[in-house]
Amino acid sequence: MTGTYAREAALARLSVNQQTVRQWTLPELVTGCAKAGVRGVGLWRGPVQEYGTAAAARLVRDAGLSVTSLCRGGFLTAADPAGRAAALENNRAAVDEAAALGTGTLVLVCGGLPPGEKDLRGARERVADALAELVPYAAERGVRPAIEPLHPMYAADRCVVSTLAQALDLAERFPADRMGVVVDTYHLWWDDSVAAQIARAGATGRIAAFQLADWVTPLPEGVLLGRGQLGDGSVDLRWFRERTDAAGYTGPIEVEIFNPALWERDGTDVLEETIERFAAHVLHNR
Amino acid sequence: MTGTYAREAALARLSVNQQTVRQWTLPELVTGCAKAGVRGVGLWRGPVQEYGTAAAARLVRDAGLSVTSLCRGGFLTAADPAGRAAALENNRAAVDEAAALGTGTLVLVCGGLPPGEKDLRGARERVADALAELVPYAAERGVRPAIEPLHPMYAADRCVVSTLAQALDLAERFPADRMGVVVDTYHLWWDDSVAAQIARAGATGRIAAFQLADWVTPLPEGVLLGRGQLGDGSVDLRWFRERTDAAGYTGPIEVEIFNPALWERDGTDVLEETIERFAAHVLHNR
Repeated sequence: MTGTYAREAALARLSVNQQTVRQWTLPELVTGCAKAGVRGVGLWRGPVQEYGTAAAARLVRDAGLSVTSLCRGGFLTAADPAGRAAALENNRAAVDEAAALGTGTLVLVCGGLPPGEKDLRGARERVADALAELVPYAAERGVRPAIEPLHPMYAADRCVVSTLAQALDLAERFPADRMGVVVDTYHLWWDDSVAAQIARAGATGRIAAFQLADWVTPLPEGVLLGRGQLGDGSVDLRWFRERTDAAGYTGPIEVEIFNPALWERDGTDVLEETIERFAAHVLHNR
Repeated sequence: MTGTYAREAALARLSVNQQTVRQWTLPELVTGCAKAGVRGVGLWRGPVQEYGTAAAARLVRDAGLSVTSLCRGGFLTAADPAGRAAALENNRAAVDEAAALGTGTLVLVCGGLPPGEKDLRGARERVADALAELVPYAAERGVRPAIEPLHPMYAADRCVVSTLAQALDLAERFPADRMGVVVDTYHLWWDDSVAAQIARAGATGRIAAFQLADWVTPLPEGVLLGRGQLGDGSVDLRWFRERTDAAGYTGPIEVEIFNPALWERDGTDVLEETIERFAAHVLHNR
């Protein structure tokens, strides 16, 4: 059992991304989190749109919760004008939804290589070009897009931005109050330069979100749904939290775990386990 | 069809790792390669030991082939003395086998995190410590161990060395004629620093082997057997060959593809396809 103090300390920082308890509807998520004392939630566009963006914003606000991030915009690597225009339109809609939900953070997954392409550098440049169009629109609405580097195993089909250094190289083309980055332990834990890059991100005020999941093996087919509950894997989560502390990040820490084994369980059990794991593996000092 | 000139150019550089045609026994591999005009083979310890190391050496030599590399030593991350001693003994045996086969290149897969551990940095240091013991033994026998950085998706369970920069950082603790690195496109293609690191490896004479496989998705469960035939995926193989050329590497280029779909086919068909793909996707200039 987690002591009262540890639980309070956890709840002061914890945000629960709705993917962690995907078995819950949006109202169940909001009710469950409010009841447990969780103060922040990370939402995804699909379930928000299904519920209605304005209604979702009201639901969360009325429960006293805040939306710490909206996932996700991005997929900006299309080489053809029509694909690029469609992606930008979709991203402007994502900005509008983030603004309506009252979150300043729109997480961007930049997109993979178009079919048949092999030019990673070119794809990364197209992301930068598209962001230059999106950023003013977002800034006018009080939303800061945040580039999330994804693990290199997603470079072909999901995200050509694979390291925090690459994400910062892209983000730093724009003012810090207009473009952030996401630090996600699942994607970055293997990288021996990540401590230096977290410091760089903090020094320039770029850390828009800090997300947690553990790394467990074997990876499942497709490698999308194999993230581990905090403490079950190889990631030194406390080390990451200490690095973001040292970098001056004081915002919410979002737990985002894609794992069907969690989704088969009772949502309240998973939420309580997550709070306990967060207190034990993320917050306690060594 | 591949023209005579293109085929000859391919055969001048191509080595076939036996994993690419795993359906073949060692004698079938040697006969098949010799018949096709392939001059180099990359071997694995398991099938070599099964056939008998001395007999395998004779078989390859009598067919006029050379062994371009032996896979693999490594797995040097054990934290306990007994585990470390057993790993070193195993690696000394691998050195002996490489020497018997007449190859100077023993590929090292460094090993993952021991169960329950989260300290990547510590595991990498233990690799360096163990290598300091192994290197003199290998040098006396004319064998140069070569550190192969594996894709970051293997960092937990297979290899804590995830980038060419990390491999070089380790290798450069030893003289260049005693410790090399492996450049494998499958593991390194996503990394935007790889061009600079290939140049670094070439400038210091560290490139001991250059291996090819393409990156195809979706990845299979366990992510071990999902490598693509040359040209089927996202990797700009020609770009890699040009970078190793520019770095001064003139040695064999080994095709190492772990893919059950290839193993279900006739070995000669796979070999001929590999030669054609090599000529078309690796050698031709733009």
